[in-house]
Amino acid sequence: MLRSQTKLLDLGRRQLPGLWRCLTKANISKLTMVEVDDKSGIATLTLNRPPVNSCNLELLLELNENIKQIECNKSRGLILTSSNEKVFSSGLDLNELYKPDQARLRAFWTALHEMWLSLYQCRIPTAAAINGHAIAVGCVLSAACEYRVMLPGFSIGIHATKFGYVVPHFIMISYLSVLPRRLVERALLQGKLFSTEEALQVNLVDEVADSKAEALCKCAEFIDSFKQTQPAARALTKRQFRAPDVQVLIDDPEGQLREALDYINKPSFQEGLGEYLRNLKAKDKH
Amino acid sequence: MLRSQTKLLDLGRRQLPGLWRCLTKANISKLTMVEVDDKSGIATLTLNRPPVNSCNLELLLELNENIKQIECNKSRGLILTSSNEKVFSSGLDLNELYKPDQARLRAFWTALHEMWLSLYQCRIPTAAAINGHAIAVGCVLSAACEYRVMLPGFSIGIHATKFGYVVPHFIMISYLSVLPRRLVERALLQGKLFSTEEALQVNLVDEVADSKAEALCKCAEFIDSFKQTQPAARALTKRQFRAPDVQVLIDDPEGQLREALDYINKPSFQEGLGEYLRNLKAKDKH
Amino acid sequence: MLRSQTKLLDLGRRQLPGLWRCLTKANISKLTMVEVDDKSGIATLTLNRPPVNSCNLELLLELNENIKQIECNKSRGLILTSSNEKVFSSGLDLNELYKPDQARLRAFWTALHEMWLSLYQCRIPTAAAINGHAIAVGCVLSAACEYRVMLPGFSIGIHATKFGYVVPHFIMISYLSVLPRRLVERALLQGKLFSTEEALQVNLVDEVADSKAEALCKCAEFIDSFKQTQPAARALTKRQFRAPDVQVLIDDPEGQLREALDYINKPSFQEGLGEYLRNLKAKDKH
Repeated sequence: MLRSQTKLLDLGRRQLPGLWRCLTKANISKLTMVEVDDKSGIATLTLNRPPVNSCNLELLLELNENIKQIECNKSRGLILTSSNEKVFSSGLDLNELYKPDQARLRAFWTALHEMWLSLYQCRIPTAAAINGHAIAVGCVLSAACEYRVMLPGFSIGIHATKFGYVVPHFIMISYLSVLPRRLVERALLQGKLFSTEEALQVNLVDEVADSKAEALCKCAEFIDSFKQTQPAARALTKRQFRAPDVQVLIDDPEGQLREALDYINKPSFQEGLGEYLRNLKAKDKH
Repeated sequence: MLRSQTKLLDLGRRQLPGLWRCLTKANISKLTMVEVDDKSGIATLTLNRPPVNSCNLELLLELNENIKQIECNKSRGLILTSSNEKVFSSGLDLNELYKPDQARLRAFWTALHEMWLSLYQCRIPTAAAINGHAIAVGCVLSAACEYRVMLPGFSIGIHATKFGYVVPHFIMISYLSVLPRRLVERALLQGKLFSTEEALQVNLVDEVADSKAEALCKCAEFIDSFKQTQPAARALTKRQFRAPDVQVLIDDPEGQLREALDYINKPSFQEGLGEYLRNLKAKDKH
Repeated sequence: MLRSQTKLLDLGRRQLPGLWRCLTKANISKLTMVEVDDKSGIATLTLNRPPVNSCNLELLLELNENIKQIECNKSRGLILTSSNEKVFSSGLDLNELYKPDQARLRAFWTALHEMWLSLYQCRIPTAAAINGHAIAVGCVLSAACEYRVMLPGFSIGIHATKFGYVVPHFIMISYLSVLPRRLVERALLQGKLFSTEEALQVNLVDEVADSKAEALCKCAEFIDSFKQTQPAARALTKRQFRAPDVQVLIDDPEGQLREALDYINKPSFQEGLGEYLRNLKAKDKH
C-alpha cells in the first residue's frame, strides 16, 4: 500500500519536472507559511494565497511538501489555518478546471490526490483552526484533520452539486469519516453549507472559538491530549484505522484520476462551470 | 452495474409474460394512485391496496412501474404515502410466502428486489409521508426514501424476528442507511417497532407532522431544498453514494433470490408462518 | 465461514493437547464461575481471576469453553460480570506478552481470537454487567456483548497506544460496533479511558446502575426484551449482521495471528512493555 502511494507521488513529480525545479523555497513560501513553536513542538501551516485561498496547482504542491516536511521534522502536531480573516479556503481554484490545459489538469488533480493522502494519513496529530469560510476542498482539508475548531459566523461544507460537480470517492470519505452516513448523503446531495452553529451541532466541527488565537490554543490542547501515547503506535494505529478509506485511491490512482478528468472534460460540465464563473465575475463587478 | 440491474428487471418480466400482459393500465391504477402537481412538479405516489397496503406481487410490480415512470417523466420529486388513514403499509402480503406457488414466489421476490432498487436509487428526490403504521417492508419503503415525515400515534419498524424471518441483506441496508449500527442490530434482533416519538428521537424519521396534509407539505419542502442543485449531478452523486449498498443485489441477483426462496421454503419457516397467520385470523374473528 | 471458525478452534486445541487434558472441570472452575438461574434461564458468567481479572491463556480458554457451553445448553441469555468489586477486567495478562515462550504465545493469541469470536457471535442474547474498571480487553469483552450496564466511578476503554501497542482489526471492530467512527478513531489514538458518565454519554454503555445487583437486573431485562422473538431467527440475524466484522479473522486466522505475534515480538515493543511492567511493579511497591 505504501509502495503505491510513493509511486503516485513520483508520478506527479515526473510529469512536471520543469515546474518542480522552479518551485524553489523562495517561491514556495509565498502561498503558505510554516511556523514551528519550539516550546510545544507544534507546527502551524497557514494557507496564504489571496484573495480566498483557492487551491491551484502551486498551492496544492506546496501544501503537500509542507505537510510531509512537518511530518518528517518530528513536529509534535500540525495545525492548519488561514492568514485570511474571512476565508479559510474557498476550495479548488476553478480556473484550473475551466478549459484546462490537459497536462496541467492532470498534474493538478494528481497533486490534489497526493496532498489529501498526505494530510489524511499524516503520522502526527492534525487539527484545523477554521478561521473563515471552509468551502468544498476547504471543508475537505478540515475534515482530513483529526480535530476542528471553528470561528462563529462562517460556513463550511461541500456544495459541489450546486455547480454540477459529482464529488469523487475520497471527498465522500472526508465527510463519512466525521458525520453519520444519513447526514453525509443529505449534505452532499443538497450541496449544504453548514453555519458554524450547525456544524458544531452535527459534530462536523468539535469546538467553537471566539478568536483565531483561541482556536489555535484549542487545537494545541487537542494535540496535547496525545502526550502520554507512544508516537509510533499512535501513527500506525491511525494509518491502519484509515487504511480502508484510502484503499481506492492507493490501489487505483490512475483509474481515479481518469474518472475525475473525464468528468471535468465533459462539455456539459464545462458549460455549467463557464456559466458559474461568469456569474461570479458579474457579482464581483457590482 | 446498471446493465445488471436492467437484466434483473427483464428477468422478472420474462418469467411472467401472461401476468404482465394482463396488467393493463386500468388494472394497475387500482393498487396505487399517482398525482403530479403541475406547479411544483412533484409526484405523489399513493399506496392503495385495502385493507392494509400489504405488498403482493401486483402491488410490487405496479410500484416499480410507477417509480420508474415518475423518474423518467421529469418530475422534480417523489412523495410516497398511503390512502389508508391508519396504515402506511403492513409489509409483505404473507399469503405470497405461505405454501407458495414456486413460479409466483420467484416473481414476487424478484419484483421486491426490483422495486427496492428503483426506489433506493431513484434519480429524483424522494420522501415518505408516513401517515400510518409502517411495518416491515412498509418501514423499508420509508427508509429507502431520502426523507421521512411521520404522523403521531403510529409504529414503524422491522419485526421479522418475531415471526421467524431472517431479513435479507438489502433490508439490513435500509436500516443501516438511516440509523447508527448499534441501534440497527438491536432493533433488528428485537424486531422492534418504534413509536413515532421513538422514531424521531433516533432519526428513523426526520420530522413529525400533525396531519397528512402537513406531512405532504414538509416532504415538498425537503424536495425544494434541492432547488439550487443541478439535477444530473445530484442524481449521479446519489447513485455513487448508494452504490456500495446495492452491490450485492446487483452483482448476484440470482444468489440473493435463491437464498431468500430457500429460507421461505424451509418447513420450519412455513410452520411458524402458518401458526402466525392462524393467530392473525383468530384475532380478526374476535 | 462457519467451517473456518471450527477449524480455527481445532487448531488451538491441537496445538496444546497437554494443556487441554489437564484443564479438568475442577481447574477450570477457579478462574470463572457459571450460575444458571433456573427460573429465568439466564446464565451468569463471572470473571474470577485475582487480583484484577487479567486474561492469561487459562482464563481465555476457560471463558471460551464456558461461552460455548452456555450457548449449547439452551440458556436464554448470557450475562458477563466480575467477582471483583473494583475491576471487571484489566485486560490481557501482560506477562503473556513479555519475553514470551513462542508456543504459549501462539496458543494465547489463538485463544484470544477464539474467545472473542465465541462471544461476538454468541447465538443467545449477551449483556455485560460492568461492575468495575474495564480496561483494554476488558472493554473489548464488554463491547462484544449486545448490551452494557456499568457502575459509576469506574473507567472503560482501550489504552493500547499508551504502552505502544497497535490494536488488531478485531479490537477496532469492537469499538466500531458500538461507537460512531469519529469517536472510535479519537478514542483509539488517545488511548482514552472513559469514565462511567462519559461512556454513557457516547453510548459506549447503555445504562448506569447503582449496584451489581441492579446491573444484573437491568441486563436480565435486556435479555427479556427478546422474549417474543424466535430464537433461531434471532441467532441467524445476529450472525449475518456481524458476519462482515469477523470476516478478516475467519478468512485469514493465520495471517491475523502472524501479524499480532510479529508485532509482539518486535524488540521495540518488548522494550516498551518491559519498562511499562517495571513501572507498574515500582508503583505497587510504594
